[in-house]
Formats: sequence, structure tokens, C-alpha cells
Amino acid sequence: MTKINGNFLKLQAGYLFPEISRRIRSFQAENPGAKIISLGIGDVTQPLAPAIVEVMHKAIEQMGTEAGFRGYGPEQGYDFLIDAIIENDFKARRVDLDRSEVFVSDGAKCDTGNVQEIFGVDNIVAVTDPVYPVYVDTNVMAGRTGKADKNGQYEKIVYMPCTAENSFLPELPTGPVDIIYLCFPNNPTGAVATKQVLRKWVDFARSKKAIILFDAAYEAFITDPDIPHSIYEVEGAKEVAIEFRSFSKTAGFTGVRCAFTVVPKQLKAYTKNGAPVEVNPIWYRRHCTKFNGASYISQAAAAAVYTPEGKKQCRRIIDIYMANAALICESLTKLGYEVYGGLNAPYIWMKTPKDLSSWDFFDRLLQKANVVGTPGAGFGPSGEGYFRLTAFGKPADVKEAMERFAAV
Amino acid sequence: MTKINGNFLKLQAGYLFPEISRRIRSFQAENPGAKIISLGIGDVTQPLAPAIVEVMHKAIEQMGTEAGFRGYGPEQGYDFLIDAIIENDFKARRVDLDRSEVFVSDGAKCDTGNVQEIFGVDNIVAVTDPVYPVYVDTNVMAGRTGKADKNGQYEKIVYMPCTAENSFLPELPTGPVDIIYLCFPNNPTGAVATKQVLRKWVDFARSKKAIILFDAAYEAFITDPDIPHSIYEVEGAKEVAIEFRSFSKTAGFTGVRCAFTVVPKQLKAYTKNGAPVEVNPIWYRRHCTKFNGASYISQAAAAAVYTPEGKKQCRRIIDIYMANAALICESLTKLGYEVYGGLNAPYIWMKTPKDLSSWDFFDRLLQKANVVGTPGAGFGPSGEGYFRLTAFGKPADVKEAMERFAAV
Repeated sequence: MTKINGNFLKLQAGYLFPEISRRIRSFQAENPGAKIISLGIGDVTQPLAPAIVEVMHKAIEQMGTEAGFRGYGPEQGYDFLIDAIIENDFKARRVDLDRSEVFVSDGAKCDTGNVQEIFGVDNIVAVTDPVYPVYVDTNVMAGRTGKADKNGQYEKIVYMPCTAENSFLPELPTGPVDIIYLCFPNNPTGAVATKQVLRKWVDFARSKKAIILFDAAYEAFITDPDIPHSIYEVEGAKEVAIEFRSFSKTAGFTGVRCAFTVVPKQLKAYTKNGAPVEVNPIWYRRHCTKFNGASYISQAAAAAVYTPEGKKQCRRIIDIYMANAALICESLTKLGYEVYGGLNAPYIWMKTPKDLSSWDFFDRLLQKANVVGTPGAGFGPSGEGYFRLTAFGKPADVKEAMERFAAV
Repeated sequence: MTKINGNFLKLQAGYLFPEISRRIRSFQAENPGAKIISLGIGDVTQPLAPAIVEVMHKAIEQMGTEAGFRGYGPEQGYDFLIDAIIENDFKARRVDLDRSEVFVSDGAKCDTGNVQEIFGVDNIVAVTDPVYPVYVDTNVMAGRTGKADKNGQYEKIVYMPCTAENSFLPELPTGPVDIIYLCFPNNPTGAVATKQVLRKWVDFARSKKAIILFDAAYEAFITDPDIPHSIYEVEGAKEVAIEFRSFSKTAGFTGVRCAFTVVPKQLKAYTKNGAPVEVNPIWYRRHCTKFNGASYISQAAAAAVYTPEGKKQCRRIIDIYMANAALICESLTKLGYEVYGGLNAPYIWMKTPKDLSSWDFFDRLLQKANVVGTPGAGFGPSGEGYFRLTAFGKPADVKEAMERFAAV
């Protein structure tokens, strides 16, 4: 008799975004004429940059010829891409990485979801509250938690509340923790971490022999030169941190699929007896066994992001989104809303008008303004009373959405 | 203190193909002039079909325009592809599937590796011997096995030997098993399963409430009209089988990355108390949480495989490979080797000359003929004394490899 993995049965309702889609579909079915503007799911809207499109056409031409055809690439990714990543994203910020420390993949969602597999089930996981649901759900599936309570929080997970009161920066846990998920610039709150903040976490992890899983998927939105883009800009971080990056928001790759993860050679985990084990070869083994490389076309496209033209064009696209963010912050502030994020981050985190729950606000906004956002409660109980808007819409849509906000 | 997943430390040596690459690199370094022909890793060599290339160019053009741009697609895959799959691969063979039963992904290696996650760790897994290493290694990582013995076989796994003596068709297990991996046309032996053989397995699984994980990645190589392409051609299979398909070998997508998995709604697993649980929504939850859809360009390309032109062109490519297979079988038989497979399958499974181990034969063939194959022992102890050649080489290379075989 095949036993199901009972941990899946502990999972609460649907994954957040499918639930949002469901409500939108249902509203749209009842109101077929309504023109819905989505500032909800963090999906980009600007087309791929011309320099990227050009390289992709070339890659496909190659694939259609006997001489240029490429089959399986290295599971870890092509050197041409890894070298461009190391040179531009790290060396330029005084972080030295070896090729074997970079793992190209098809998405940061996959990587942040899969990474927990290489660690024991008995580790205690700490996440912020609110949190990107993938970190939590994948640990539930793996059996690192008990059941959910009525707030949707799982036994055994350490939740670190982030609210306006602590400027959305989690305090260091006081009890034992082994694996800590951090995301800066933060999804959903838009909070960013200075070098001091990151140093505090790195020192903490070193003192506890804990590992930080650092999600830097939104680093491209940092404009303030004092905010680090990589956790490895902090000394000692290579001993305790895995970093996740993505081309999804940096270069509009949500439909193209390419990302990468850095697992430094210095990083150690431990056997039950306390013997140190290098994490890099373990992730390499996992990557080679369960993954067959990202699409060659996507990798060629990702490398084009680092060419002079690619950089310029992607920067221009990011500027469009950041102008959206500025417009949202400005408009909502004018309307009297309390607004956070939107600086160095593509997410705007607003307080819902006083007595509305975040799902009620979602429904109301959908019905009255036909605008979609993401209810803060979907990210955890400390997200209750907040609402996430993203800067990834088309500028005209964002403008119209703000006008509708004003009218409601 | 972060504990490593100790199960990873049980894994034997490297994954087979990286080990082969290592030996090739080392030989090449010592013999820089040698022109190595690889009939080893099952990677294709023919360029993408023109009809596919054309569609990919169009998809990229779209992605470069505001109106045509596509970001996140449905995690499960686009309907345009799912519909083409259902219509051509299943309905044409009298198998009805619902859209929600097909899950598009970036590779069958990922899917066959990930699928075990949704089942409990206490299930007993049965695999053939020899076996595609991914099935075993991913179960080791998940903790479904004990340690490896000196043959590289893991405690708790049920191995079903496949040798010339049983025509490479495994016998039904006599002890308890819960999850059974089957692959037909088989990698590595090239054996195929008739409807009767599959029916025997389906009936067995039904009687035991077991689940069959059916890897049909090579179904496109079946030419005999009596051999089923899908396990669902057998009545009742939907209650007990998940099927894996891939475009890698069908259409040369090893570098493009697209595959799909069928999880029928009728399929049930059980809680510890024996209550039935539908597997489809559990896999859906896993897929949505840990995966963000295959590249839009790859999905557009996959849909082109089903157009009249695409079908014709892909068929022509498969015919090239099957002509290779025929040449290999004929040449080796003439040279007095015992040869299996190569009919309805792209793999040729030969017996090594009598006293040579399969790795010794590998080294000897590499050194004397500069030809690379895959040692049977890499697939399990019953693979010892066998050697795998693939039909995926360029015809001129295959011809030359056969001449070198004759000369050695």
C-alpha cells in the first residue's frame, strides 16, 4: 500500500497566488465588463530588452544547425554565464567566487524551495512573519514542522515578526534556530537591510553554527549605494550563507526561467555527531541528480543581461518600475494611507484602512476599484492589516489604478 | 547547529555520468590528439527541426513586444501545449485525459526525481537492476533506504534483476512493495514491454494498492504497432500509475528543456490509517509550490512538435537514430558480440567480451578505439558484464565507431 507523505496534509488551504487567481476569476465571471488592473502577483510586464531578444534569436539559430546544436549542458550551468555572473554581480562588489560555487537553475522559487532537502529534518527553521510562503510550505512538506495553528503558523517553526514597530527588521531569535531564511530587499514588505543589519545576522549565525538562506532576488532594485546587494559583502558570510538570485525581476525572465544560487565552499553543516560537512558538494550532488540544467536559450539570454547594451536596457526597465513605485507611494501617502517600502525595492507595503482585514480590503478593492493587490495576511499573521502592491505594472495601468484608489 | 541531511552521505561515489566525464577528460588531457566518439551519455546530436526553430523565433519576437510578452505562465503548463499533448499522445491511442492530469515541466529527470517527495518515507521502493540511477539516488536522499552494500545496492530497496535470462523483464516481487519504478522502452537495456507485460504489472499494483512510476521517455522510438506507448493503454492503469514523458529524445530537447508528467485523478495513495488520498491535488500542490512553469519558449517549441510539419520532421530525426541503432546491432553481431535492444528503443545493450568487467571494457574501448559507452555496472550489479551504447550519435560518427570496434 502506497503511503502518502502525510506532511502535505498539514498544508493550509491553497498556495496564496492560486487563491488570488481564483477570486479574480470568480469576480471576472460575474463582471465580464470590468477591466481589472493587477498590482498583485509580482509578475513583470515590460517586454524583454532588445539586446536579450537578439541573443536569444542567435541561440535558436545555432540550435537549428548541426554545428551549433547544444544538447545537455553542464547541470550547474554554462561557464559563459557563470563567469559573467561572478564578474559583474560579485567581483564588481569585491566578492570573489569560484565557478564551482555558482549553480545556475531555472528559478529562485525552485532553489529556495529545494535547498532545504540537503539539511536534516531535525533542524529548527526560522522565518520572518510576514514571509514568502515557499520557504514555509516546503519545510512543512519535508516534515520539519508540526500542525498549523488557527493563525496558519506551524509548530516548530520560529516566526520572527516584522511590523512597522520594528521597521520590518526581525529581531535575533532568543531560542535555538539552525536555518534562517532572510530576504532583502524584502518580499513582501519592501524593507532593505544595511550592512550593519546583515553583519548582525552573519555574526549570529556564526556563533550558533546556523545557516542563513539569503534570498536576494530583488537586489537589482537597490539604488542606494550603501545598501549591500549580496550578503557576501559582509565578512564571514561565506561561512554561513547561501544566496539566491534571479533574472526574473532583474531582466523580466519570469517566462524565460533562469536564476542562480551561490553555495560557498567554506560553508559547513554538521553531522549529528557535530562533524563538519561541506555543503557545496552536497548541493552539487542534489543539483546533478534532480536537475538537468536550465534551457540553453535561457542561459544565453541571461548572459546577455551582462553585456553593456543589456545592462543599459535592463536598467531602463527597472527605472520604469521604480517610477511606478514612486508614484504609488506618493499617491497613497497623499490619500492618507500609511505606506512602506517602494525604495530600493519593487514592493509597496501599505496599512489597510483601520478596521479592514487584509482579505476584506482585497475583496473591496477588487469590487470597487477593480484593482488587485495581495492581502498581507497571505504572508503570515503579522501581515494582517497590511496589503502588498507591486511596482511591476504597466505605467499607464499604475496611473489608472492610483486614480481609481483616489475615487474610491 | 545546522544538521546536514545524513542520507546524502550514504550515496555511492559520483553520479554515473559525471564519473564518465571525468574519465574522458583525464584521457583527453593525456591524449590531446585523440578524436573521441561518444556513444555514452544519451544525448542527442541532430539539430532542432526547422518547424520548431521557426516557432521558437516567433515566441521570442512576441516576448520582445509589450503586447506579446508573457511572464509567469500557469505552473502546470500552458493549455495550448497540454491540449496538444492530450490530443496527440493520448486521445489518438484511446486514452482520455483531463487538462488537470497533465503537468508540464522542464525535464523528466526532475519529475522522476521529485515525484517520490509526495509519498511517505516508509514506503518500500522497487526498482529494476540495472536501473536509471536517478530513481534510486533520489530515494536514498529522501531516507527511504539504509546503507549501500559492497555492490552499491541499498538496504530496504527491492531490486528486480533484469538479465538476458529473463529477457530483461523483471519478475513480480514476492515480498511487500509500495512504489515500483518501471521504464519501457528501457534505459539502459532497450527492452520493451508488450501490453500483456504491462497488464501483469497493473494488476499486481492494483492488488497491492501499490503505485507504478512509469517512465515512458523513449516511447517515440517504438515502431512496432503492438507495443503500447502509454501504460494507460492498459485498463485500470489510471488507478495505479503515474507516467513520465519527455521531449528530450522525441524532439531533441535535451538543451531546450521540456517534459510532462501525467497524474490521473483516479490515482490514490493512503494515509497511515488506510484512508485513500487523491494523488493529483498533492502533486499539483508540490508543483505549484516548488516550480514556476517551464520556459514559455520551450513550451511553444514543444507544441510545435505536434504540428503536421513538426511531426514529420521529428519522425525523420528519429529515423536517423534508429538507422544508427540498426547499424550498431548489425555491426556488433557480425563481430560476434551478444547484442540486445536497439529495436523500438534507442539503447543497445551488449555483453562485454567474456572476462572483462564493464568498467574495464569502458577503459579499454576508450583507450584503444577512443569510443565512449556506458558501463553496465553503473546501472547496478546485474548490469555488470554489459555495456550500453546509444543510437543518438551523428551517423558518420556511429559508422566510424563501428569501424574502430572492428579494428580493435
